[in-house]
Amino acid sequence: MNEEYIKKILKEVKEGTISEDEGFRLLKELPYKDMGFANIDNHRQIRTGFPEVVYCEGKTPEQIRDIFYELARHGSVMGTRADERDYEAVSRVLPDAVYHREARIIEYGARTVRNSLVAVVSAGTADIPVAQEAAVTAEILGSRVDRIFDVGVAGLHRLLDKIDRITPADVVIVAAGMEGALASVVGGLVSAPVIAVPTSVGYGSNFQGLSALLSMLNSCANGVAVVNIDNGFGAGYMASVITKKSL
Amino acid sequence: MNEEYIKKILKEVKEGTISEDEGFRLLKELPYKDMGFANIDNHRQIRTGFPEVVYCEGKTPEQIRDIFYELARHGSVMGTRADERDYEAVSRVLPDAVYHREARIIEYGARTVRNSLVAVVSAGTADIPVAQEAAVTAEILGSRVDRIFDVGVAGLHRLLDKIDRITPADVVIVAAGMEGALASVVGGLVSAPVIAVPTSVGYGSNFQGLSALLSMLNSCANGVAVVNIDNGFGAGYMASVITKKSL
Amino acid sequence: MNEEYIKKILKEVKEGTISEDEGFRLLKELPYKDMGFANIDNHRQIRTGFPEVVYCEGKTPEQIRDIFYELARHGSVMGTRADERDYEAVSRVLPDAVYHREARIIEYGARTVRNSLVAVVSAGTADIPVAQEAAVTAEILGSRVDRIFDVGVAGLHRLLDKIDRITPADVVIVAAGMEGALASVVGGLVSAPVIAVPTSVGYGSNFQGLSALLSMLNSCANGVAVVNIDNGFGAGYMASVITKKSL
Amino acid sequence: MNEEYIKKILKEVKEGTISEDEGFRLLKELPYKDMGFANIDNHRQIRTGFPEVVYCEGKTPEQIRDIFYELARHGSVMGTRADERDYEAVSRVLPDAVYHREARIIEYGARTVRNSLVAVVSAGTADIPVAQEAAVTAEILGSRVDRIFDVGVAGLHRLLDKIDRITPADVVIVAAGMEGALASVVGGLVSAPVIAVPTSVGYGSNFQGLSALLSMLNSCANGVAVVNIDNGFGAGYMASVITKKSL
Amino acid sequence: MNEEYIKKILKEVKEGTISEDEGFRLLKELPYKDMGFANIDNHRQIRTGFPEVVYCEGKTPEQIRDIFYELARHGSVMGTRADERDYEAVSRVLPDAVYHREARIIEYGARTVRNSLVAVVSAGTADIPVAQEAAVTAEILGSRVDRIFDVGVAGLHRLLDKIDRITPADVVIVAAGMEGALASVVGGLVSAPVIAVPTSVGYGSNFQGLSALLSMLNSCANGVAVVNIDNGFGAGYMASVITKKSL
Amino acid sequence: MNEEYIKKILKEVKEGTISEDEGFRLLKELPYKDMGFANIDNHRQIRTGFPEVVYCEGKTPEQIRDIFYELARHGSVMGTRADERDYEAVSRVLPDAVYHREARIIEYGARTVRNSLVAVVSAGTADIPVAQEAAVTAEILGSRVDRIFDVGVAGLHRLLDKIDRITPADVVIVAAGMEGALASVVGGLVSAPVIAVPTSVGYGSNFQGLSALLSMLNSCANGVAVVNIDNGFGAGYMASVITKKSL
Amino acid sequence: MNEEYIKKILKEVKEGTISEDEGFRLLKELPYKDMGFANIDNHRQIRTGFPEVVYCEGKTPEQIRDIFYELARHGSVMGTRADERDYEAVSRVLPDAVYHREARIIEYGARTVRNSLVAVVSAGTADIPVAQEAAVTAEILGSRVDRIFDVGVAGLHRLLDKIDRITPADVVIVAAGMEGALASVVGGLVSAPVIAVPTSVGYGSNFQGLSALLSMLNSCANGVAVVNIDNGFGAGYMASVITKKSL
Amino acid sequence: MNEEYIKKILKEVKEGTISEDEGFRLLKELPYKDMGFANIDNHRQIRTGFPEVVYCEGKTPEQIRDIFYELARHGSVMGTRADERDYEAVSRVLPDAVYHREARIIEYGARTVRNSLVAVVSAGTADIPVAQEAAVTAEILGSRVDRIFDVGVAGLHRLLDKIDRITPADVVIVAAGMEGALASVVGGLVSAPVIAVPTSVGYGSNFQGLSALLSMLNSCANGVAVVNIDNGFGAGYMASVITKKSL
Repeated sequence: MNEEYIKKILKEVKEGTISEDEGFRLLKELPYKDMGFANIDNHRQIRTGFPEVVYCEGKTPEQIRDIFYELARHGSVMGTRADERDYEAVSRVLPDAVYHREARIIEYGARTVRNSLVAVVSAGTADIPVAQEAAVTAEILGSRVDRIFDVGVAGLHRLLDKIDRITPADVVIVAAGMEGALASVVGGLVSAPVIAVPTSVGYGSNFQGLSALLSMLNSCANGVAVVNIDNGFGAGYMASVITKKSL
Repeated sequence: MNEEYIKKILKEVKEGTISEDEGFRLLKELPYKDMGFANIDNHRQIRTGFPEVVYCEGKTPEQIRDIFYELARHGSVMGTRADERDYEAVSRVLPDAVYHREARIIEYGARTVRNSLVAVVSAGTADIPVAQEAAVTAEILGSRVDRIFDVGVAGLHRLLDKIDRITPADVVIVAAGMEGALASVVGGLVSAPVIAVPTSVGYGSNFQGLSALLSMLNSCANGVAVVNIDNGFGAGYMASVITKKSL
Repeated sequence: MNEEYIKKILKEVKEGTISEDEGFRLLKELPYKDMGFANIDNHRQIRTGFPEVVYCEGKTPEQIRDIFYELARHGSVMGTRADERDYEAVSRVLPDAVYHREARIIEYGARTVRNSLVAVVSAGTADIPVAQEAAVTAEILGSRVDRIFDVGVAGLHRLLDKIDRITPADVVIVAAGMEGALASVVGGLVSAPVIAVPTSVGYGSNFQGLSALLSMLNSCANGVAVVNIDNGFGAGYMASVITKKSL
Repeated sequence: MNEEYIKKILKEVKEGTISEDEGFRLLKELPYKDMGFANIDNHRQIRTGFPEVVYCEGKTPEQIRDIFYELARHGSVMGTRADERDYEAVSRVLPDAVYHREARIIEYGARTVRNSLVAVVSAGTADIPVAQEAAVTAEILGSRVDRIFDVGVAGLHRLLDKIDRITPADVVIVAAGMEGALASVVGGLVSAPVIAVPTSVGYGSNFQGLSALLSMLNSCANGVAVVNIDNGFGAGYMASVITKKSL
Repeated sequence: MNEEYIKKILKEVKEGTISEDEGFRLLKELPYKDMGFANIDNHRQIRTGFPEVVYCEGKTPEQIRDIFYELARHGSVMGTRADERDYEAVSRVLPDAVYHREARIIEYGARTVRNSLVAVVSAGTADIPVAQEAAVTAEILGSRVDRIFDVGVAGLHRLLDKIDRITPADVVIVAAGMEGALASVVGGLVSAPVIAVPTSVGYGSNFQGLSALLSMLNSCANGVAVVNIDNGFGAGYMASVITKKSL
Repeated sequence: MNEEYIKKILKEVKEGTISEDEGFRLLKELPYKDMGFANIDNHRQIRTGFPEVVYCEGKTPEQIRDIFYELARHGSVMGTRADERDYEAVSRVLPDAVYHREARIIEYGARTVRNSLVAVVSAGTADIPVAQEAAVTAEILGSRVDRIFDVGVAGLHRLLDKIDRITPADVVIVAAGMEGALASVVGGLVSAPVIAVPTSVGYGSNFQGLSALLSMLNSCANGVAVVNIDNGFGAGYMASVITKKSL
Repeated sequence: MNEEYIKKILKEVKEGTISEDEGFRLLKELPYKDMGFANIDNHRQIRTGFPEVVYCEGKTPEQIRDIFYELARHGSVMGTRADERDYEAVSRVLPDAVYHREARIIEYGARTVRNSLVAVVSAGTADIPVAQEAAVTAEILGSRVDRIFDVGVAGLHRLLDKIDRITPADVVIVAAGMEGALASVVGGLVSAPVIAVPTSVGYGSNFQGLSALLSMLNSCANGVAVVNIDNGFGAGYMASVITKKSL
Repeated sequence: MNEEYIKKILKEVKEGTISEDEGFRLLKELPYKDMGFANIDNHRQIRTGFPEVVYCEGKTPEQIRDIFYELARHGSVMGTRADERDYEAVSRVLPDAVYHREARIIEYGARTVRNSLVAVVSAGTADIPVAQEAAVTAEILGSRVDRIFDVGVAGLHRLLDKIDRITPADVVIVAAGMEGALASVVGGLVSAPVIAVPTSVGYGSNFQGLSALLSMLNSCANGVAVVNIDNGFGAGYMASVITKKSL
């Protein structure tokens, strides 16, 4: 999958520019070199031009600090599900790092600004943290983001009043808990692809987000695809991957 | 719970009009007499003025025929989940019986017409049988019914165009499968009580109606209560019980 | 859905009372004006005459205080799932606010008293908080409430002894956990509509209220509809919507 | 676990009545001798005095015929979940075999009549096959059975009217589908042990008997234990084991 | 269901010993008088001769103390799921109350000793609290109990070695978590009824006791019935109800 | 949301070109006119330029024929989940209609060809019908499609050998049943957005596609979003919506 | 992962024995050459020396016939989940093919006989098809198999009587439905690795094998691992892979 | 199952070397003597040559200390799910005990070193504790272990780069959470048996490990068997049992 590189090595071996052993080493390490870092998402990131992503939950502030420091040498980095103490640890070694509190994201390095627009729509105030995780992720990955929060379907007039801000978007992200109906309603109103992110907001028979998840998977509107419960990052990332294609 | 009757018996015993033994028998059988029939729903039906209801699924046409014939001697009767063959058997002994094919309901006897209005709203064409079961049930139990079918949320404009027919209703029934979002959207638009009936319409992760059921139970709109999956009869009955109160 | 208003604007535009631009702005903002507030339930509330409702869980005492203060300028307000600290914050700016401890409801403003009667029936002592949430909600929304607590089906005589207090109600709310059988038994004894609210009371295979929820959805009694697990507010609200119709 | 027998063998070996090898063989085969038959329930059956039980579902009529013929040489036999064709095959080799159609049980051989009374109570007409399986099983295993069918909780008066026939029973079996509330209500009215058998009767969110199963496991009445969904045989067997103890 | 009492009242009314009004009051209050106490289990307890049972979880030590004090005036009392602090509160007003720590049961009053034997068998050391709840319950309700703990099927020899202590029991209780196989194995070895109580012991795909629950409901051994997960009290109570019958 | 049109009507009313009543009717019917057809997806389709879509499952061949005939007057039509008999009925009135057998899709009318490339990757031969539904849908909606079938992760070399055909795609659709691992592996190899469609292929604990669904929702690769089980059409449609953006 | 081969190519390129282009092609196709066939299991099969495996369910007899014919040119083939008609189709082109009816396996070609012994133990007669699938698979893949059927734990003596045939096995396969307790009991008695295969045998709360699956995953015995429900082939294959290691 | 021993006792009884009573006692206690200890895994451990295993979760440090001290007199001991405080208690009486922190295992006594190689492969950093539990278990039970961590399928190149370390293993253990795809991918690359251990790593619809569990049970690769969620010990033990066979 890197034909020119392989051919170049073969050529150099033939011409004696590099030894057979060196040629072998280069060919054998090729997949590893392509990756560069230990992080499993690395190879893809490099190709996509996106910054490195660190999932902070379950790691100590010290571990997160060290990973950020290492990755920051190669470019931009972002950390998701990070709390205040994680950020403090990182900011001690990377004073320019920024903490997006509601989104729980640590950001470091320059953003690639692109021309795409992502609308992030959320149903209730309790869905805002997930919506913000999606919004900040999309911004860091280069999109402009318009946030349209608190427009759940129980008060349809509000959503309809904001529809003019949603329709121009290249991708629409809908974050909703409870019955998750907002994804279907928005899906029926726009022509852009809709990324639905169910949230665990609710109680009782919402079963930690299962009701919204099933609702969104069974959406009667076309052009809707779903990511994991509370996975705001995943929605923002998917939106960025889609809009990157559209440049 | 029938104080006058008990007091009357006591009085007659005291006055010797009836014997002690007769008094005891009357008092002991009282709950049974209140019921009158063997059918478990009977006692309630009599008090409510609603006709007898026979659940036909799992009974033979002959059994259904005999039950109808017996009950018809006391007043109106309706049978739910009845197929063509059930109707044929019934119509042989009760030629005036009517079969509502889509609703799968057999009806016999005069209707009590009342002044209430029930709006039956459904999402897709596949939800129509359940919606019709609800609509015909409400009609037989005395309500006027307005059917607003095929107004799922993926094409919101159609629902909004029909909203003037839904808002005047005393009770609104919403039948929807897939993600069942229609219940929340309608619930947010009307001030009448909404009875949501999830249908098993859909496939894959709808899990035979579970997605719509959970969606409706978690509705972000207030004034929404839910009956069992595909239970059109239950929704129509509940609507009638509610509107009966409002006369 | 507001024909007179639209016609009036058209007339004014024609007569030159307002400019074309002003007419456009008024027509475009119409749905928004209808809502008035940011809260999604607002539009419906205004039409129904019910006070504003604030779901307090997941909001800080400060946020709740501010929302109450804002909404109180327009009329009555109630807050559900509120704890002691939420109430303290609210009462500092609205000293007349009342806290219903067992129901976890903060109430502010005058009640509209109506003539309807709601019976709130509960199975065990552990179901009382949910039952109280339903009862206080119904009271705030204007109904008289009769509380019949601790009459679970394992001691049927107690329920039968209280039946004379349940039958006169316009709507019956049944709150029960464990196997939730009370809904079916009450449903078979009364002719009023029954709103069943499953509670998460129990352990083991009750799976946080699932057993009572499924039990109530599958009730063999007619005239029973169900709200979400532990959703006392939803039951009280539904009861009020139903009884409002009956005025 | 058969000390006398082991000691007797040891004694015979010591006295030379039997050889060492013979003694070894007897000791080694002991568990097998205790069983006698190939059927896994056999050993227990022999000790309990109950007839052999054959689960017919999934076996061909020919297999069932052969198993019956073999077992019939040792005493009574019963076959559960048997259809008409199974019975025809058996009756060809055992003309005295009896078929209980509703219970789907084939019976062969003399019954041990005992003095215990089992009440079999069922909720709806659709629960009758499971109830009959329980009733016939209990009869074959030696109990007198009183059948009280169609007394579901939605029409409580009927159940209360029959309570005098239920209270004298040594064990009460309750078969109910849908919400299975009958088990709790009966459990609260009687002092005998209650065996609850959930049935798969119902539709939608009853999930093939899950609603009744969970309901019965979470019964608020004490003295209730549960067998598998539709397991009428298991309930009848358990009742017989309990009443056998009470002789 | 209390014919003599009803006849006596009628006679007294006829003879003028009591007035018509008094007769009416007595007849009307009859079900209530039968109960005597507010506690829903009360009526049954009185008939069964068992002491009152208080479920302590979710009640404050003060509430538990007051309930115990009230009930203690009428006879014996037991409290389940009680912690140390509950006991301290009770012992302050009832110094003779006893606390069974492992079983988490508070006991007060004299036991009725009966001649029955209950074997309580448990699989692992972690199942012991549930097993002890069952054992102490059975003892308080009058049975002798033999505890055979830590005999899970992974080391079958230990169970077989103890089988001589299990077979003489009138009822066998089996408490097991994880895969719950012990119920089937014991069920196949004894002729007494087996009450299986699944425990939530385990992790991962045991899903808080679901694996043991399903296992026990599907037991291939006959004569096994099941109570709720971790419901040691329920198992002990059921065993006592069964053995009471056998006296 | 159609400012020019509203302003034009207002202008005409002011200028007297149309009457006030006519202006009111036009404004009121506006949402309906925007839709044009009764079909709920219609409004969106028109805006997107996609043909009409008919879901054939649950409709009779005659209904499908009539719907096709009606819609065909306005442009292209496609029908999903159609069987041979549906196609025969349609082809009688629309002889140019084409039937894609494996995909179960009926197609009628001209395609809009666009420049985007969709790669449809499937795991096993049994996943091919779902993959074909996705592929044909994408083709009808204007994309070029490259089909890479039977490259499940158990034989990773085959997938790697085909990776050069997958990486150039604008969108990648992955259809897989069983454990659905292919979505994660492909997601890690490409930079395009991945639409994962779980199939119900498998048995036992795959629970009709649940295993693949959960697997794909929890994908460790970024840039993956999921549609309903077996929803090949949904995947193809989503891919087309995404690629349409990229033109 | 084939260093010598890569070095050899590099050497030949350097020496001019092969051209640069030829060298590139060889290096690029390397993974493909390693696989040889299109079938995804192929690569592994070749390395393991096992025959090709065809999953017949969902394929037509003609497809199965053609696949067998193609694969038979390279060595032995086996087909699982094959019915009579599949076999007839295959036997027409491969007359030496053998059909194992109970196991539903078609076998063609010579077996590699190895010295390992696999014991296949099953609980009830209904589990035998799954057990036979496991047994025949293990035989075809080269093991000797001892079948110990119908030794469920409800009649423990039978299992203990056969234990001498189970303990010498290199691997033990346990197939059981219902509560699946046999896996734990056998796991506790032998020192060989146990492969547990849950079967869907049972009804009601066994939920198509879920009870046995959870039971086996939670086995209290060590040295037990589990394959999918009814996956006899998977168990037989795993046993063969394990015993292959032990040669 | 210990024929020589039984024969020897019989011989001694015959010859009078031991009395009949003594012979009886020896025969009766035989299964118990075989076990030696109270711990249920004991009998098996002795036969397998593996050390005793103590499951520490839910036991107090004091209990663990005492059990270790007791068992240490007979040989090696290991404790799983042990925390720091458990280790401190043990080390006070057994100063040579070692604590494996990440694996949460306490080890005491000499290891039996065997020649087998186990590869422990894990997907993400969060899976490492489970992977370490498996790895340390396998080491204590005598295998050499190669740890290949953080090679999840989203970055396939890393796994392929390490494949040369995985293929030589006698058994491969794969620990993965989220979608658990690594088990299938590794299963397709190696010829050794694969033990898959799903971890509870993830969030939302991973449902505490259910997604990985179902994924692994439905693996499309052959030669994969599964243990319980997070059961690293079970995987390490199974691997050791398998490799023990291969010596």
